[in-house]
Amino acid sequence: MSRERDWRTADATTIASAVRAGTVTAEVVVRATLAAIARENPQRNCFTTVTDAAAIAAARQVDARRSRGEEPGLLAGVPFAVKNLFDIAGVTTLAGAKINRDDPPARRDATAIARLQAAGAILVGATNMDEYAYGFVTENAHYGATPNPHDPARIAGGSSGGSAAAVAAGLVPLALGSDTNGSIRVPAALCGIFGLRPTYGRLSRAGTVLFAPSLDCIGPFARSPRDLAYTCRVLEGADPRDPVCTPPPPETGLNADLDPDTPGPLDLTGVRVAIADDYFASGADPEAIAAVEQVARALSATRRVTVPDAERARGAAYLITAAEGAQQHLSNLRDRPQDFDPATRDRFLAGALVPSQWYLRAQRFRRIFGERVRALFDEVDVLLTPTTPCRAPPLGQAIVEIAGEAVAVRPNLGRFTQPLSFIGLPALSVPVAAEDGRSGALPLGVQLVAAPHNDGLLLRVAAYLERAGIVRAAIAPLLTE
Amino acid sequence: MSRERDWRTADATTIASAVRAGTVTAEVVVRATLAAIARENPQRNCFTTVTDAAAIAAARQVDARRSRGEEPGLLAGVPFAVKNLFDIAGVTTLAGAKINRDDPPARRDATAIARLQAAGAILVGATNMDEYAYGFVTENAHYGATPNPHDPARIAGGSSGGSAAAVAAGLVPLALGSDTNGSIRVPAALCGIFGLRPTYGRLSRAGTVLFAPSLDCIGPFARSPRDLAYTCRVLEGADPRDPVCTPPPPETGLNADLDPDTPGPLDLTGVRVAIADDYFASGADPEAIAAVEQVARALSATRRVTVPDAERARGAAYLITAAEGAQQHLSNLRDRPQDFDPATRDRFLAGALVPSQWYLRAQRFRRIFGERVRALFDEVDVLLTPTTPCRAPPLGQAIVEIAGEAVAVRPNLGRFTQPLSFIGLPALSVPVAAEDGRSGALPLGVQLVAAPHNDGLLLRVAAYLERAGIVRAAIAPLLTE
Repeated sequence: MSRERDWRTADATTIASAVRAGTVTAEVVVRATLAAIARENPQRNCFTTVTDAAAIAAARQVDARRSRGEEPGLLAGVPFAVKNLFDIAGVTTLAGAKINRDDPPARRDATAIARLQAAGAILVGATNMDEYAYGFVTENAHYGATPNPHDPARIAGGSSGGSAAAVAAGLVPLALGSDTNGSIRVPAALCGIFGLRPTYGRLSRAGTVLFAPSLDCIGPFARSPRDLAYTCRVLEGADPRDPVCTPPPPETGLNADLDPDTPGPLDLTGVRVAIADDYFASGADPEAIAAVEQVARALSATRRVTVPDAERARGAAYLITAAEGAQQHLSNLRDRPQDFDPATRDRFLAGALVPSQWYLRAQRFRRIFGERVRALFDEVDVLLTPTTPCRAPPLGQAIVEIAGEAVAVRPNLGRFTQPLSFIGLPALSVPVAAEDGRSGALPLGVQLVAAPHNDGLLLRVAAYLERAGIVRAAIAPLLTE
Repeated sequence: MSRERDWRTADATTIASAVRAGTVTAEVVVRATLAAIARENPQRNCFTTVTDAAAIAAARQVDARRSRGEEPGLLAGVPFAVKNLFDIAGVTTLAGAKINRDDPPARRDATAIARLQAAGAILVGATNMDEYAYGFVTENAHYGATPNPHDPARIAGGSSGGSAAAVAAGLVPLALGSDTNGSIRVPAALCGIFGLRPTYGRLSRAGTVLFAPSLDCIGPFARSPRDLAYTCRVLEGADPRDPVCTPPPPETGLNADLDPDTPGPLDLTGVRVAIADDYFASGADPEAIAAVEQVARALSATRRVTVPDAERARGAAYLITAAEGAQQHLSNLRDRPQDFDPATRDRFLAGALVPSQWYLRAQRFRRIFGERVRALFDEVDVLLTPTTPCRAPPLGQAIVEIAGEAVAVRPNLGRFTQPLSFIGLPALSVPVAAEDGRSGALPLGVQLVAAPHNDGLLLRVAAYLERAGIVRAAIAPLLTE
């Protein structure tokens, strides 16, 4: 693994192992990463900020620790990027907004960044997103669109599109995003990588710009399930800066057998997997449904279960998102509406006008819906749904044909993600490998969903599917080598 | 203790001890209770429903258990009443409303009732309240006013006024109420008894009509701190019927040394008590302030602390109450507004019109305020405030003079209770004995407040004050004997 190409397509665990073993220095990996970003980002438009100098300094520190015989960290030398709503000390937190451009630089790193850095990972920059995380497309009026690495005429998905595309484009092996209604899972699916939305409250959000606080989660994008597991292990733990953050019960810890050092066969005996039918089997292209069936076959899952009231859950999630979203921006909506991205402004303004009775009714329904869906998990451990109803739509296109019907792109990309994150469930989008082995096909994702705090099981199932060759991160052809 | 008068003024612990010891039967106690209610309720107007037959049957069962040598329960033979928003199987739950009169009878007892009954306590009926718990006066347009037992020309306070007055009038030793902004503490203070609002979520609300769910608590009225402790011990514990109910950490259990069997001196060494100043020392009659000073002296408390932003907290609590309150009654507000009590209708209608942005802003402030106030409890264990700013105002009077200023009765009675329950703190109103030993003076309450789940400490402090003769339940002269 000495060629740049190899470092650019390896997963984080491979890189960390090599750095820890001394096969390569963190500085070499990071310099190669920064060079690739410098060359390719003008076309990729993944990064809005590159933290070159700090990254090289941090890499040298990791190398110095290692050469002194100190522990360099679980993610030693792994370059990573964050959606630009994470605070980076010394950098203005854009959150995809022109309005935030004039803000003073953040004084402190987000907790998630600090924890990854403490584990030896190297922050290389901040990535593009939909303004204030309100969107599924990453077509940002101020900072441009992030094209899909597998087809630059198509969207990367959003709102964490810059992070997902950076991982799929071979720019970084690891990136953080945030997910309110699907903003990690949707771009992970459209870019062909792994993206985890953890159980609500499991990872600290301190130092991130919130969108709809009762829904927001942060989570990782990666090229392998084990990378997600390592990253979550590093990110987990109570945080006095985030009162919402509640570490999981000890028995739900992440699985040691995802470690590369114990790679024995994964045993899923007794794990009850079911396909979500009804709502989750409609409004999607046949390919998206076929991808779910393909995963189900690999897991010998034949059972189908109905999530009751999913359509209503999506409606309630919209309402709560709009109302809570507007709350974060009221004074700017009043004083400088012209400075918002037109794609978010209309929804924020609508959210500002929601009566409290609608909001409270949606929250009330949410509790009832949550109880009913959690009851499903008495009989099922993992639920399978498509992540998105279609492959990546073309850039700049408002209407797309899904299942033979012309529908609006923006709302429909979240059709399958939104009703489940609504009640805090952990959900992982896995990239399904084309059944005929055809390369060049646009990626498709399947969503694995579990009961609260069963995140570890999702990682096991994803790892099982990866070892079985059913799912695989799709790294796009590199632009330069 | 054989005279009826003694049973009517004893505390619950005394009655339970006598029943357990066989000094008296539960049936004798309950028949005496029912007879007193039958004679006096036409004047007292505490009860809206009396469950005679069921009470006698239950008393006989307790006696039968005892005579078979079985454990008759911690509260064996203790008659109790519940605010009429608790479900009683077979009885229509009025919640103080005319609208509810046509509802079918409840099919199941509220959890709190079932738990008290399992401990041998005997339910004798349901008590009057402000409509849907929205008020501090118990002047109900449909079911009449409950007069103060110490002066029938004055209010009992509300919204759990019937329960408080029943305990103060010698009709029952124990009653349950609910407290959203002060509805247990205010009538406890005005009626001269002990009333506990436990930590938010500590006691199950299953089977009660909610008012503002993010604020509502249930809790007991009693004639002694030990009765409150026993009652809470019986009521505590997780309840699958109430997802909000979270039992306290084990180390915060109630104190064994409140038991009558271990009555040694209570040691408050190391307990840091402070007087709340600023907001909590203004807008009150000098007598109310003097009562706080009297309690402070008995506890050697000299420190004064400021609860920041209390006025704003009260405003935010109002807003959340109105919005959540309206949510429970929207269809009736639309379809039959004329059937509401005029005293609640205007506020529910106002609540129905609250924009979600006001509600969300109030909830946001609530989190910040909660963090700031909880930080106070790093340095203080118990905070003292007046419970109400004045003694019981006259019935039917909208304006009262407090501290020399003419102010509206309805909102001002909750001035000191509302900002603290707003953030879920436990609070206990203790009845301060007149310093000059004068009988006949209207009661006054002092509010003891602690950090979440420190309910046990409040009970210890109250018991200490009771043994020191500083606080004492004031049972009004009985009407008939």
